[in-house]
Amino acid sequence: MDYTFDNVRVVMVNTTEPGNIGAAARAMKNMSLSYLYLVNPKGYPSAIATARASGADDVLSNAVVCESLKEALQGVYLVIGASARQRNIKWRQMDVVGACSEIQKTIMAESQKVAVIFGTERTGLTNEELDLCQILMTIPGNSHYFSLNVASAIQVFAYQNYVYNTTIEFKKSTNKLANFDELENFYAHLAQVLEYIEYFEDKRPKALLMRRLRRFFTRAMPEKEEVAIFRGIFRNIKPFKKL
Amino acid sequence: MDYTFDNVRVVMVNTTEPGNIGAAARAMKNMSLSYLYLVNPKGYPSAIATARASGADDVLSNAVVCESLKEALQGVYLVIGASARQRNIKWRQMDVVGACSEIQKTIMAESQKVAVIFGTERTGLTNEELDLCQILMTIPGNSHYFSLNVASAIQVFAYQNYVYNTTIEFKKSTNKLANFDELENFYAHLAQVLEYIEYFEDKRPKALLMRRLRRFFTRAMPEKEEVAIFRGIFRNIKPFKKL
Repeated sequence: MDYTFDNVRVVMVNTTEPGNIGAAARAMKNMSLSYLYLVNPKGYPSAIATARASGADDVLSNAVVCESLKEALQGVYLVIGASARQRNIKWRQMDVVGACSEIQKTIMAESQKVAVIFGTERTGLTNEELDLCQILMTIPGNSHYFSLNVASAIQVFAYQNYVYNTTIEFKKSTNKLANFDELENFYAHLAQVLEYIEYFEDKRPKALLMRRLRRFFTRAMPEKEEVAIFRGIFRNIKPFKKL
Repeated sequence: MDYTFDNVRVVMVNTTEPGNIGAAARAMKNMSLSYLYLVNPKGYPSAIATARASGADDVLSNAVVCESLKEALQGVYLVIGASARQRNIKWRQMDVVGACSEIQKTIMAESQKVAVIFGTERTGLTNEELDLCQILMTIPGNSHYFSLNVASAIQVFAYQNYVYNTTIEFKKSTNKLANFDELENFYAHLAQVLEYIEYFEDKRPKALLMRRLRRFFTRAMPEKEEVAIFRGIFRNIKPFKKL
């Protein structure tokens, strides 16, 4: 699995704010990406970048600084350019999920490396930079305001790429559910109690109300212990109406 | 559609860095979310928050500052707590996609509002805060280093929620593909040229090589104009080998 992530490199081109480089390193490491390439970063290295990287300073200190985008793309089999907006149809365009699918396919074949490139803060990638890309990845978003911070764009890509290549397992409850007999006994007890407190009446017919209550309890999928708690409560109901 | 987004509120609890509030506003607006609630924000309002909000200062200036989490949750039908890690199984846990699915279901029923809450920077949500949540949303990520910035966590959620509720349409090429006749004429012309330059030989048998070339061109799905470009090239090949 780490094999997948280690074949993806993130390339930041002409980044002007060192803080964004640090934030990008942190975004990457959180999503198991380690290989950061920096093409002509402005004011880098920088204490601001290191501060924003938080615990991801290893990604930052291993970052490769390049003088040209071509240098950063050496040995790469698939180049994907990130773009805030749709461009001319001459590029093959897809959303982030589509790009992650292409990355996965490319990496499957004999550890072929992939680069995802992100342009400068104000204007993104130039057409000349996009000419080096096989795929243009568009991050979906608000069409009336789309001004994603470059580290946020990297975060979105890194998250989607992580999710695309992993499955998350949640610890399941090991508590035993109440079985059929226990539930039927519970409903019988419940009906007895409701009769006892004189809840049912013409306006609240027993059959209808019991069906609604069954519907409610069924949806909650009661556990054995929970049924026992309810039955304990029932046993404590005092015949207050009769007193 | 905006209806969907307008019923989701993002709640930041005890945020200590005003910059993160600004970054969160920007992350939200990029993904069509507008309703930000701030419970006891430290050092807010702040010029740093406004700077980081970039063009999303409307989200920031409309943000509701509350003195307690309960106040921020008034009128809400579903409360989701964001967590970096899995917690005790007593909470219903799911990933971001799962949470977005629950949000969509809740919102569909008569504009019921939903809150997604994010805890303080260092330690996230407390157990007492999580007790107010019906669902615990875990953002998937690197198990060896998971230290997502709170604004990055909001970015990931906002992106996933946007993508979950929208479809993106890419402009399709309107260029006409080459049809069967044009392609067959092209292959015939190609074979003629290859014979003319004496490319085929025992080691490079015509049938095999033409099949591989067909496979390649088929994959690229040539357009009419592209086939015309190739045939123009063929017509210009000089019999240099014969000279």
